Amino acid sequence: MNYCSNCGSNDIEHKIPEGDNRLRHCCPGCDMVFYDSPKVVTGCVAQWQDKILMCKRAIEPHIGTWTLPAGFMENRETLQEAAARETFEEATARTSNLELFAIYNLPHISQVYVMFKADVIDGEASSGIESLETEFVDESNIPWSELSFPIITETLKLYFEDRKRGVFSLHVGEITRDHEISIQIMRY
Amino acid sequence: MNYCSNCGSNDIEHKIPEGDNRLRHCCPGCDMVFYDSPKVVTGCVAQWQDKILMCKRAIEPHIGTWTLPAGFMENRETLQEAAARETFEEATARTSNLELFAIYNLPHISQVYVMFKADVIDGEASSGIESLETEFVDESNIPWSELSFPIITETLKLYFEDRKRGVFSLHVGEITRDHEISIQIMRY
Repeated sequence: MNYCSNCGSNDIEHKIPEGDNRLRHCCPGCDMVFYDSPKVVTGCVAQWQDKILMCKRAIEPHIGTWTLPAGFMENRETLQEAAARETFEEATARTSNLELFAIYNLPHISQVYVMFKADVIDGEASSGIESLETEFVDESNIPWSELSFPIITETLKLYFEDRKRGVFSLHVGEITRDHEISIQIMRY
Repeated sequence: MNYCSNCGSNDIEHKIPEGDNRLRHCCPGCDMVFYDSPKVVTGCVAQWQDKILMCKRAIEPHIGTWTLPAGFMENRETLQEAAARETFEEATARTSNLELFAIYNLPHISQVYVMFKADVIDGEASSGIESLETEFVDESNIPWSELSFPIITETLKLYFEDRKRGVFSLHVGEITRDHEISIQIMRY
């Protein structure tokens, strides 16, 4: 932040405001304090028969890798609406029966992932603008070594473990990355 | 937003950027697009024996009403850390055994509430800086007509319903407000 978005001053300070306990961008000109907060990412493990809807990313980061449809929640949406919208935008697939499936903290990048299990209506899907390819993939063909992010790998692992057991439940956990190198996954 | 926080231009436009489908604040000077996204609020139904920890708000909105300790999640926190921090800041209470209890969408104000059930360690609590009073309250003394927000009422109702049944489970729902007047609560 170089300029105050309220008064235009370029005298922005990065300091702990009075009565607060965290560093914030503050404008001494107009006394504005700017808060930054974690982002919610939401998406679907979208099923059709015994297959899962996957998308090959057309955008960075990790263009060309495979992912589940997911993205940033927008203002004025519910979690469920955001997950369904992302699935439609990335794979033109309409979904039903959304059930909360995994809630994971990614504190090193200030994100919370909220993933749903869902059914694809009529098994219809194609590539949205952010996808190079869209496919229904069965368990034996999941491209485990070409997945976009650790949270995608973890969500798929949890899904197939639950499916094997015959019971789907809500999973809560955390993924962190130490010094941008080693990934740690905790299931609470 | 009056000025671009990147380049200082006061020529900010509120428009749908190319390839997007939502209105954003955009700077035609430096091509910056500013995204605003939902906030996560997290807190605890913090138990001690058969009582619940409640705080009388020392700050607006709704100063003087009773609430559960809760507040905005901060960057680099997990949901659980944020809920425990809020409980400590508002009621100087340390918590253990946090369990996910309620996830509610409040789309009309672009918030997601994530409430945990927790135990207060040693039953110790006092008023933090944002609280006028802090009390352990039993079910018969909950000040139902003086609660701060509909989500607090809903969370307490769910808690006492579960306690009566003898089983606590995760609750998912939505609270909306039509035209700033009528409140609608949906349990999914």
